[in-house]
Amino acid sequence: MFTLSAMDQDLQPGQLLARGVSRHLRSHGFVSVEEFVPERGKRVDVMALGPKGEIWVIECKSSRADFQSDNKWEGYLEWCDRYFWAVDTEFPTDLLPDETGLIIADSYDAEIIRMGPEDKLAAARRKKIIQKLAMDAARRLQRYRDPKMAALPDEASLL
Amino acid sequence: MFTLSAMDQDLQPGQLLARGVSRHLRSHGFVSVEEFVPERGKRVDVMALGPKGEIWVIECKSSRADFQSDNKWEGYLEWCDRYFWAVDTEFPTDLLPDETGLIIADSYDAEIIRMGPEDKLAAARRKKIIQKLAMDAARRLQRYRDPKMAALPDEASLL
Repeated sequence: MFTLSAMDQDLQPGQLLARGVSRHLRSHGFVSVEEFVPERGKRVDVMALGPKGEIWVIECKSSRADFQSDNKWEGYLEWCDRYFWAVDTEFPTDLLPDETGLIIADSYDAEIIRMGPEDKLAAARRKKIIQKLAMDAARRLQRYRDPKMAALPDEASLL
Repeated sequence: MFTLSAMDQDLQPGQLLARGVSRHLRSHGFVSVEEFVPERGKRVDVMALGPKGEIWVIECKSSRADFQSDNKWEGYLEWCDRYFWAVDTEFPTDLLPDETGLIIADSYDAEIIRMGPEDKLAAARRKKIIQKLAMDAARRLQRYRDPKMAALPDEASLL
């Protein structure tokens, strides 16, 4: 049992896993953007970009029910070179499909248990994803740096 | 004469211009990353990325002295498609070299007075810049999202 800080209380269980995953990926030289929308109607928990332009998607599942209600994950495979699940130590990992990667995570850190098999993106799509990731991350960063900035009329649709 | 808020007081005059520039560029669909390092030894005030992958560099000069002490700006031309100066309304713009763009800015907004001439980046360099911008923005964003994250040993060199 641990005490959640004020900030932690604002995060859902899946977001806490995402935080631990993002922290850990830094040690592999990857940066992460959470809740990334590669195209309309899709939103991945963690989109990670590696030093050689590698793109990984990590979906964070806090429980069996959370996993079983996900009918979208296969749609994310076409947006990454490698796909991973991130779950906590209590999760029944036998449920997870073969041919996917596995990360065990908590709110503070994570560990890659099994690499997702590589299925390389086409160059044009990789370029598109990296550019969108640059734009989304820069836009969100500006909101933190300059909180008094007025919203643009179409901004909600950009994030 | 205007009153600076607590946050504004932490920013240098050039950084306040950069803030106004970054705000304005959003209306052109550009995102901005401030104090961006395209390569070791170079640091541009504002690196902006447009919706079609356009790369602009904007150097912010708060005074004549600030401009005249800059002997590095020509080294930034090779890192962008268009180069601009951003200055306030008091700045003697006759000092600025021909063949560069001009933005008039304050802390709150800006306006493009003269487009910098286009000199398109080679594809490989554009790709490299966009990927670095993605990684830098995502890394800085994570610091805001997750302030308790421990620093990596080599992190200073990554930003």
